[in-house]
Amino acid sequence: MAAGPSSTPLLKDELDIVIPTIRNLDFLEMWRPFFQPYHLIIVQDGDPSKVIKVPEGFDYELYNRNDINRILGPKASCISFKDSACRCFGYLVSKKKYIYTIDDDCFVAKDPSGKQINALEQHIKNLLSPSTPFFFNTLYDPYRDGADFVRGYPFSLREGVQTAVSHGLWLNIPDYDAPTQLVKPLERNTRYVDMVLTIPKGTLFPMCGMNLAFNRELIGPAMYFGLMGDGQPIGRYDDMWAGWCSKVICDHLGLGVKTGLPYIWHSKASNPFVNLKKEYNGIFWQEELIPFFQSATLAKESTTVQKCYIEISKQVREKLGKVDPYFNKLADAMVTWIEAWDQLNPLGSPKIATAKAK
Amino acid sequence: MAAGPSSTPLLKDELDIVIPTIRNLDFLEMWRPFFQPYHLIIVQDGDPSKVIKVPEGFDYELYNRNDINRILGPKASCISFKDSACRCFGYLVSKKKYIYTIDDDCFVAKDPSGKQINALEQHIKNLLSPSTPFFFNTLYDPYRDGADFVRGYPFSLREGVQTAVSHGLWLNIPDYDAPTQLVKPLERNTRYVDMVLTIPKGTLFPMCGMNLAFNRELIGPAMYFGLMGDGQPIGRYDDMWAGWCSKVICDHLGLGVKTGLPYIWHSKASNPFVNLKKEYNGIFWQEELIPFFQSATLAKESTTVQKCYIEISKQVREKLGKVDPYFNKLADAMVTWIEAWDQLNPLGSPKIATAKAK
Repeated sequence: MAAGPSSTPLLKDELDIVIPTIRNLDFLEMWRPFFQPYHLIIVQDGDPSKVIKVPEGFDYELYNRNDINRILGPKASCISFKDSACRCFGYLVSKKKYIYTIDDDCFVAKDPSGKQINALEQHIKNLLSPSTPFFFNTLYDPYRDGADFVRGYPFSLREGVQTAVSHGLWLNIPDYDAPTQLVKPLERNTRYVDMVLTIPKGTLFPMCGMNLAFNRELIGPAMYFGLMGDGQPIGRYDDMWAGWCSKVICDHLGLGVKTGLPYIWHSKASNPFVNLKKEYNGIFWQEELIPFFQSATLAKESTTVQKCYIEISKQVREKLGKVDPYFNKLADAMVTWIEAWDQLNPLGSPKIATAKAK
Repeated sequence: MAAGPSSTPLLKDELDIVIPTIRNLDFLEMWRPFFQPYHLIIVQDGDPSKVIKVPEGFDYELYNRNDINRILGPKASCISFKDSACRCFGYLVSKKKYIYTIDDDCFVAKDPSGKQINALEQHIKNLLSPSTPFFFNTLYDPYRDGADFVRGYPFSLREGVQTAVSHGLWLNIPDYDAPTQLVKPLERNTRYVDMVLTIPKGTLFPMCGMNLAFNRELIGPAMYFGLMGDGQPIGRYDDMWAGWCSKVICDHLGLGVKTGLPYIWHSKASNPFVNLKKEYNGIFWQEELIPFFQSATLAKESTTVQKCYIEISKQVREKLGKVDPYFNKLADAMVTWIEAWDQLNPLGSPKIATAKAK
């Protein structure tokens, strides 16, 4: 291990778990040994009159649509309804440094030795050890026990940069789009890849919100999950949108994004026909969105996540508005989101240590 | 599996195994079940009067320094002496489409189930299935059985591009530089990471020559291992040099580079004191070399590997000559190498299918 924490701190008072849901949270029973020390922020989607049962013994706050409307007023328009994108409201109201968000159909996975995986502990390890976005290390995370930087890795880059995002994976049901679900209904992910790596600077990836942790102080305002679901022409692109925006901003600010471990057990595939209806515009639009984000550059003056995000919202309006009027609405919502963020988080922009961007 | 070969062809008549050595090749005994179907090109380094014993039953040709001088004449100056960089002479004289090169202290590794790993078979799988350099797939190689492209991966990029390089890894003794060897003499790589991935476009990596395969038709002329060893101020950067040059050219031509599986068992760490003497200039220079290669761009007119390589040689002279006069000598040798390549491979430049570079 080149550096990094030798034992993993719990971060009990520094991390919130954000769960979007429409049902009783029985899945928490299995997570009890791992999640009970933490505070939960539950974002109830759909009918606010429905009562969501949370297993006893958990410390939580729960927000339904009425709460969101009351707290944000007219700015509540930026929070999606009838889509798990609503989870980002939890990021907004959290006061903690770190966020872990998980879907309510995700259970504790086992490693190849049969041991239950403490996903949160691995995310914390990922977030507390540096990232290496400027050069690829062929033994992957050099800060892990038993690994290091290999021959030919520049010494000036071995300190790494701060990690902003830890993207975890899924055993059993893989995160496929509707067409792939339809073509391969029986495919299961059974391969446990014992690895964490930094996604290199300049490389985009499909960020899934099912099992995701991030440093809210470093990148929180970029974790907006967009306008999806009810009244919108698109769904299931909420996490993708946040992933593209946050990666471009991390690259600009010299922050790191990791993917790989930990795995959770994704229990049930969502309905591919319903998914196709939600996704079809996104499948079409992403062909324009990827080149847009790949070529996006941010001004030197954009030194905070908020400034970067506002700059991206302008580029969205300017360059994607002609793809579909939806993107003008989305650009507006991006600005509203930042206004809401600053209103609920008045202590100013996150602190970023000077990164050694090359 | 999204595409790719369903069973791995042997490529018996299309692949040469290149082995640089100074000793009897007893290590081949362990590889016999895997290597015996193939033709070996042995490049004998050091004293040409020494007789290298090759275990019976292998089909091989062996070249010592006298052979190299005789075949290349004055152009033999571009082939290193007393350094495993001499292996690239084998790439030059091969007439096959694929090359696998391995060090003579590398043995057959076992996977976690205890099964012997057929490294060559995995390299062939890697080379025959496409690469995905333009966008990261979070389930890694999408062409592998049980994997695919995840939600959010643009469909227009799912065809991938041709794979030019397959970089394999090492269990037991990791490929560390001398300072890391000195600091961590007991560290062993015991982690079997069951994964292959494409190194994204625009990202450089430290390519190790210990366990490496490539498509000679696609990228051969870029696989020059530089001027190292006897009479040179540097050693142990031969494969790094080839890795940086070939990655820049692959990125320019829209070709793919994969790393990960297969593992070999690296039996013995080389002497860190000797290594330090060979490496110290490289450790210093690589701080200039990485930014140089990261910012290198090639002209649209450079449509063949040879043209790209000559263009890089000019940039080396122009920009690295001031770092040390050695780089002027290296730039000359790069040109000589291409002349030697074209002389021994007169059938013209490799054929590259139009890649969908973005």
